[in-house]
Amino acid sequence: MRLSRYFLPVLKETPSEAQIVSHRYMLRAGMIKQASAGIYSWLPLGYRVLRNIENIIHEEQARAGHIPMLMPTLQSADLWRESGRYDDYGAEMLRMKDRHERDMLFTPTAEELITDIFRAHVSSYRDLPLTLYQIQWKFRDEVRPRFGVMRGREFYMKDGYNFDLTYEDAMHAYNRHLVSYLRTYERMGLQAIPMRADSGPIGGDDTHEFLVLAETGESEVFYDSEITELKFGSREIDYDSKEQCQAVLEEFTSRYARTDETHDEALFEKIPEDRRRTARGIEVGQIFYFGTKYSEPMGATVVDDQGNHVPVHMGSHGIGVSRLLGAIIEASHDDKGIIWPEGVTPFHCGIVNLKTGDAEADAACETIYAALTALGLEPLYDDTDERAGAKFATMDLIGLPWRITVGPRGLKNGVVELTSRRTGESEELPPEQAVKRIAAIYGLTSE
Amino acid sequence: MRLSRYFLPVLKETPSEAQIVSHRYMLRAGMIKQASAGIYSWLPLGYRVLRNIENIIHEEQARAGHIPMLMPTLQSADLWRESGRYDDYGAEMLRMKDRHERDMLFTPTAEELITDIFRAHVSSYRDLPLTLYQIQWKFRDEVRPRFGVMRGREFYMKDGYNFDLTYEDAMHAYNRHLVSYLRTYERMGLQAIPMRADSGPIGGDDTHEFLVLAETGESEVFYDSEITELKFGSREIDYDSKEQCQAVLEEFTSRYARTDETHDEALFEKIPEDRRRTARGIEVGQIFYFGTKYSEPMGATVVDDQGNHVPVHMGSHGIGVSRLLGAIIEASHDDKGIIWPEGVTPFHCGIVNLKTGDAEADAACETIYAALTALGLEPLYDDTDERAGAKFATMDLIGLPWRITVGPRGLKNGVVELTSRRTGESEELPPEQAVKRIAAIYGLTSE
Repeated sequence: MRLSRYFLPVLKETPSEAQIVSHRYMLRAGMIKQASAGIYSWLPLGYRVLRNIENIIHEEQARAGHIPMLMPTLQSADLWRESGRYDDYGAEMLRMKDRHERDMLFTPTAEELITDIFRAHVSSYRDLPLTLYQIQWKFRDEVRPRFGVMRGREFYMKDGYNFDLTYEDAMHAYNRHLVSYLRTYERMGLQAIPMRADSGPIGGDDTHEFLVLAETGESEVFYDSEITELKFGSREIDYDSKEQCQAVLEEFTSRYARTDETHDEALFEKIPEDRRRTARGIEVGQIFYFGTKYSEPMGATVVDDQGNHVPVHMGSHGIGVSRLLGAIIEASHDDKGIIWPEGVTPFHCGIVNLKTGDAEADAACETIYAALTALGLEPLYDDTDERAGAKFATMDLIGLPWRITVGPRGLKNGVVELTSRRTGESEELPPEQAVKRIAAIYGLTSE
Repeated sequence: MRLSRYFLPVLKETPSEAQIVSHRYMLRAGMIKQASAGIYSWLPLGYRVLRNIENIIHEEQARAGHIPMLMPTLQSADLWRESGRYDDYGAEMLRMKDRHERDMLFTPTAEELITDIFRAHVSSYRDLPLTLYQIQWKFRDEVRPRFGVMRGREFYMKDGYNFDLTYEDAMHAYNRHLVSYLRTYERMGLQAIPMRADSGPIGGDDTHEFLVLAETGESEVFYDSEITELKFGSREIDYDSKEQCQAVLEEFTSRYARTDETHDEALFEKIPEDRRRTARGIEVGQIFYFGTKYSEPMGATVVDDQGNHVPVHMGSHGIGVSRLLGAIIEASHDDKGIIWPEGVTPFHCGIVNLKTGDAEADAACETIYAALTALGLEPLYDDTDERAGAKFATMDLIGLPWRITVGPRGLKNGVVELTSRRTGESEELPPEQAVKRIAAIYGLTSE
C-alpha cells in the first residue's frame, strides 16, 4: 500500500478522553474512531489488524477441527425466555421491539441460539462430537464503557460451542479449546495465562480465563512465577488425542494461577515465597464446561447407542477479538507508539523514502516495494513528501515491526537501512538483502 | 473436509414456508436456518459461500483502489437527525434506546457515519480522491420479510463511499465502481445488468442498479436483448484511467435497460421489436452519485488549491452480499438442487466413496483428498456409510460443480469417475488425471 493513496489519519495531539495507552495509540494511529459511547468505527489500519487476528483464530479453530458458521446479531427474546436468561441478564442486554412489537435483543452471547440449531438438526450420538463457532459482533450495554475497545459496548467476539455425548468427551473438547487458545495467543505474540476463574452468567463449574499480564488489566491476578516460563511453542498436537490435550492442560494449569474471584490465599502461600506474584491481567478469552445447563431445559438430546434420549454435554469458549487489539498494544508498546508482533502487524514492513522526488530514491523504493509484494508481503510505502522526521514518527506510532529506510546518501554506497521497531537497531545493507531479510523474518524464502 | 466430521444438516422434506427455489434449496442444503422472521443463522455450508462472495468483493475492491474498514452496526440517532434522515426513514429503521435512554438505531446504511469520519479527519483536497468501504451487517425492518435471504431483515452488505473534489472526479469514482462491479459479478458466475434506476431514500440523480435476470425477481425490467451479449471478460483495466472506465460505462449502459421505476415506453419502442425484452430481475447492487447531499448539511468540506472551503462530491455504492446467495441459486439450479459456479462454490469438488470400509476405495479416496488438499483446494469427501444413492442426492442438492466418484469396480480398471454437476456428463479416468483436471478447472497446475 502506498501511503499517498491510503487513509491513515494520525493525530498529533493525545486525545483527552483516552485514559490508557492502547486507547490513546489506537486513536492517534488512526485505527479507530468513536461513533458513540463504547462504539467504534474501525478505520483502515485498525480493520487490518482486526482481520489478521480473525484469520489466526479461524486457522487455529480449523486445526482443532471446529466448524465456522455465523449467527445473527439480533435475536428474538423467546429463546432467552426458554432458558430463563432473558430476565437474568439485566440492563447489560440491549433490548428493542421490532415494528410488530415483538421483543428482540442484540446478542451478548449465543448459547440459546446454538442449542436451538442443534436440537433442530441433530438427533443421534453418531453425529457427535460437534464443535461449532462463529466470530460475530456482540453487544453489552456497559454502564460506563471505557478504555476504548478494551471495554466497549459493541465488540467482536469468537464464541464456540461443543456438543458431546459424555462428560469425558466434553472435557476433551474443553482441553482441545485450551490447547488451541494457547497456540492462538502465542501466534499473536501474546502470553495469555489460563487461570481458574468464576463462571458468571454463563454458568458451570469448570472454567479458565486467559489473562495477559499488563498494568492496566481490570483483574487482579495471583500466580506462581514458573507459569510465565511455559511456552506452547511449535509442538505438534493431535487434537483427536485425549491424552495429548489432557497433558497440555495439566502442564499449563497445574501451577497456581487465579483471578481475584477464585483466589485462595492459603493455597497461594504454599508456593515458595520468591515465586509468588501479584499482578494485573487483561482477560482475552474464557472456556467453560457447563454440562446440561442449556441442553436439559431446551430439550437438546440425542439418542445414544442404547436407544436412550440423553441431553448433550456442552461448553462454550470465547475469545475477545476486538479487545485483543487493546491487549496486544498494552503488552507491546513504548513511548513512541505501538510495537506490533509480526503475527498481527497491519503491514509487514514500512518503506520510508527520505527524498520523494529524487529519481534514484524513488526507483529504489519502487523496486523494494515490488519485490516484497511479489513475495506476497504487504509493505506500507511512505511515498509522501513529508519530511523525514515526520515519516519516522508516523512509522514508530503505527508500530510496523520493520522499516526499510531509503535515501540518496545510502544509495550512493549501495545500501538502505533496515530497522527493528522493537530494538531500534539499524543495519545498512543492499536493497536485495533487506528484502531477503524481511522475507526470512516472515518465514518466506525470497526465491 | 470429511463429511463425517462436518455439520451438513440436509433436509429431505421441502420446507413449507419457502416459496422460491433459492429459499427452499438453502434450507434443504443445510445452508441457513431461520432464527426469527427475516433473520437467519448461516450454517457452515452457507457461511462458506458467504465468505467466498465476501472475498471476491474484497479482492475486486482492492483492485479498484478502494480501502476497507468497518463501521459499527449500532449508531446514535444524533447523526441521522443532522442529515434529516432520522424521521424520513420510517418504520423500516429499527430503533432502540440504550440503558441511558439515548436513541440508537441499527444501521440500514452509513452515509451519515462515513461523512462524520471524513469531516473529522480530512481537510485538504490533497487527500482526495478517497473511497472507503465496508462489508457489514445491516437491518431493515421489512413489514413482510420473505424469500429467505433475498428479502431478509438482517442482511450482509458491502457499502462503499467515494469522496472527490469535483463532479468529474466523482463521476470517475462512479464509473470505477461500475467497472469493478461488472468484474465482481462475473467472477461469481452471474450476469448482472446495469440498469437506470431510481435513487430512493439515498438521493441523487445518477444511479444504476445491477440486476440478475430471474423469474422470481422482484422488479420488472425492460431491456434491449443485445445487452445480454456483453461480457466484461478478462480484459485488463487501469482503474486510474478516466477514459478506460468511461468507455466501459458507455459500452454497458448505452443500450436500453431500465427497471419499471424509470421505464420509458416511448424510448423502449424505438428498439427494433425483436430485441425488446420484458423480464424480471433481482437487484444485487446499486451505485449512486449524489453530489453534496450529505457533505453540505454535515459540513464535510476540503480546502481546494485556491484556498476555498468546498463541500466534497460523494457517491455510495452497494452490493447485497447475503442476498447474492439467493440470486446465484435462482440463476443456477435444476430440479435436483443448486449448481454453484466455480467462483463461489463452498467446496471445489465432492469425493464420493461408493463403498466406505473397502480398503482399496478408502485408500483411493484418501489419496485423491490429500492430492487436492496439497494443491490448496478444498474437497468435501463423503466418507460416511450412507448408500450411494443418498450420497449422490446430497452432492446434487448442495451443488458442488464437480464430483469424483470412487468405487471398487472402477478401481479394478484403474479409474474413477469425474462428473460435472452442470451437464451431468461423466468421464472415467485414472485418479491422478481426475485430480489434474480439477486443478486445471480452478486455474492451478498440478505439476
